[in-house]
Amino acid sequence: MIYDFTYCNPTTIYFGKKSMSHLTEELQRYGANILLVYGKNSIKKTGIYDQICAILRETGKKVTELAGINSNPRYTQVLEGGRLVRENHIDLILAVGGGSVIDCSKAIAASAYYEGDPWQHYWMEQGPIENKVVPVASVLTMTGTASEMNTGSVITNEEKKLKVGRVFPFPDLCPKFSILNPEFTYTVPKTQMVSGIADIFSHLMEQYFSGDDDCTSDYLLEGVMLSLINASRKALVNPEDYEARSNIMWCATMGLNKILALSKTQDWEVHMIEHQLGAYTDCPHGIGLAVISPAYYRYICRHGLHKFVRFAKNVWHVDDTGKSEEQTALEGIQALEDFFRELGIPATLRELGATEEMLPLIAHSTIPGGGYYPMQEEDILHVLHECW
Amino acid sequence: MIYDFTYCNPTTIYFGKKSMSHLTEELQRYGANILLVYGKNSIKKTGIYDQICAILRETGKKVTELAGINSNPRYTQVLEGGRLVRENHIDLILAVGGGSVIDCSKAIAASAYYEGDPWQHYWMEQGPIENKVVPVASVLTMTGTASEMNTGSVITNEEKKLKVGRVFPFPDLCPKFSILNPEFTYTVPKTQMVSGIADIFSHLMEQYFSGDDDCTSDYLLEGVMLSLINASRKALVNPEDYEARSNIMWCATMGLNKILALSKTQDWEVHMIEHQLGAYTDCPHGIGLAVISPAYYRYICRHGLHKFVRFAKNVWHVDDTGKSEEQTALEGIQALEDFFRELGIPATLRELGATEEMLPLIAHSTIPGGGYYPMQEEDILHVLHECW
Repeated sequence: MIYDFTYCNPTTIYFGKKSMSHLTEELQRYGANILLVYGKNSIKKTGIYDQICAILRETGKKVTELAGINSNPRYTQVLEGGRLVRENHIDLILAVGGGSVIDCSKAIAASAYYEGDPWQHYWMEQGPIENKVVPVASVLTMTGTASEMNTGSVITNEEKKLKVGRVFPFPDLCPKFSILNPEFTYTVPKTQMVSGIADIFSHLMEQYFSGDDDCTSDYLLEGVMLSLINASRKALVNPEDYEARSNIMWCATMGLNKILALSKTQDWEVHMIEHQLGAYTDCPHGIGLAVISPAYYRYICRHGLHKFVRFAKNVWHVDDTGKSEEQTALEGIQALEDFFRELGIPATLRELGATEEMLPLIAHSTIPGGGYYPMQEEDILHVLHECW
Repeated sequence: MIYDFTYCNPTTIYFGKKSMSHLTEELQRYGANILLVYGKNSIKKTGIYDQICAILRETGKKVTELAGINSNPRYTQVLEGGRLVRENHIDLILAVGGGSVIDCSKAIAASAYYEGDPWQHYWMEQGPIENKVVPVASVLTMTGTASEMNTGSVITNEEKKLKVGRVFPFPDLCPKFSILNPEFTYTVPKTQMVSGIADIFSHLMEQYFSGDDDCTSDYLLEGVMLSLINASRKALVNPEDYEARSNIMWCATMGLNKILALSKTQDWEVHMIEHQLGAYTDCPHGIGLAVISPAYYRYICRHGLHKFVRFAKNVWHVDDTGKSEEQTALEGIQALEDFFRELGIPATLRELGATEEMLPLIAHSTIPGGGYYPMQEEDILHVLHECW
């Protein structure tokens, strides 16, 4: 089945070694008041902070800062950002960092002028945008979520122990522009690089493993998977391989700017499970996904065997001569798991800090969904035990 | 080498069986004066003309028509359109048809308010946009050029015997919205469907065959080629296979909305040669490309052997066991030529109406370029003789 779709993604991407040179011209399109949002101290160590501050000074901007955004950005930080936006009449939110910082910035952009309970309206009820939205732009320093070219915003409500994703309507919350310099990712610690790669791979699979139709998007997704595997292996050997880091960065953006999933059904259950794993353990998002994925796909593959055989053959070059479809499918999933091991990712949830007592709580709080197979709480618990 | 790039493509795509239902809401964003541009009578036969006219009436639009756009749109038609735009204070140009109609509409949009010689400024000198541009939108009825989601505009100046392509700056000339209903392509005659498929394949190859780097874009291009081959074979058997026609339509749009060529060098020499072939013979664009491509790629493949081997293996599944790289590369090009034969495309230029006397004139007037190998007039003439 080929589904109808509407697609519009107007984010301007500046990609490459000299991409920061476009920041000045872009800033001139906006008013004087900038909210600069970033994470911990890494952008100060690498000099990116100083570089951006110099451009903001030269363009005559008045800068308000919101620093310390967590890797799982917190709702309290969203509220704090909203207050800063209102008090300082912010004209542009400039997010400098990875997906967490950009996700948080979009959440601030959407909720600053919402008169009510933003958590309830935007995340719990996934309600429409009914208020003024502040423009968002980004300078990307860590790759994985594609938040730089989509409208996604995953926020953790610590008080309620909930990590909830929201895809805002396109194109309202698409960043106006995003600056992607692969060199900025050289200094990202290996664990975070690998977590980003696993996140990208998961996005690709969650768009891929649904529908048994023959859709152009499936071929595009396979192409990005093949490129990502190749580039990741090169970046593991040499983190300063510009070609490899460029390809990983672009695989990430293409992996979730939504252009690869058009006309297709999708299955985001692995992300749903990981969000609750993250809410309980605060583990790196991509690492959580990499542990859950093989167990989840082994659990559901019999219900979408055709696509898992295709995955095994086209992505992992599994030779299916003399094998049953199920054998071929399982070999593909094993190849996926081996790839995550090759990246140095742990194999079990317990290594990520999950206790056995947490598993039923995670399963109970996960939004049930699925693609080939409709997951219920007991199915999710089974998958969690399989990879615990 | 991974090149820096800027990308912004804000066209809204409405895709699917019910995509026309979005026309009313989109028209409400524009003023009352519409220039409706279309080709010959086919949209009247299929009822698409009546359907659109009804929506234009319901939304209270004042419609001016420019009909009869040729498959190679003529500069005289661009001038006529410009006059209509100025006289009727046109607010939106609505192109209904294939790439020719949309290309012509963009040319009108760019040149209507240019005070000077548009041909000289916009096509011969490829000059910047210095005047008011009229918004363009499209309803696609024939697939191939991706004009519905890019800024390309190929115009034939009959008087000067020149067919010249212009890529206007993104995003100024991107259609504001494009309506893509695969069912609208069911009634396209087989020759035109096949010409469109060859045009798409050519776009993919011209972006692919350059650079020996390992770039994510190359993997994406291979994915679209594989999807296109598969969908084309199905559409040949059953032109009303919705899945197949949808995939061909989306392969076309993705094939030249420029997102698959980012960071890559490209080689558009086959298009350059075909443009002049078209100027002399008025042959269908895609058919001309399909005749030239195998001859051209055989001529240059030794200079980019690595990529031609990759093409043979990844796109055509050529088994390279015990073969030299050159043998494998040539087998890939043979598979490409066989595919064009399978589509029913003639093998020679003479079947397209080219006389032997035309060949030096075509070679002489072709803009020389190339990727792996820098083509000169004598090289172009050699290629033309090879496929004459």
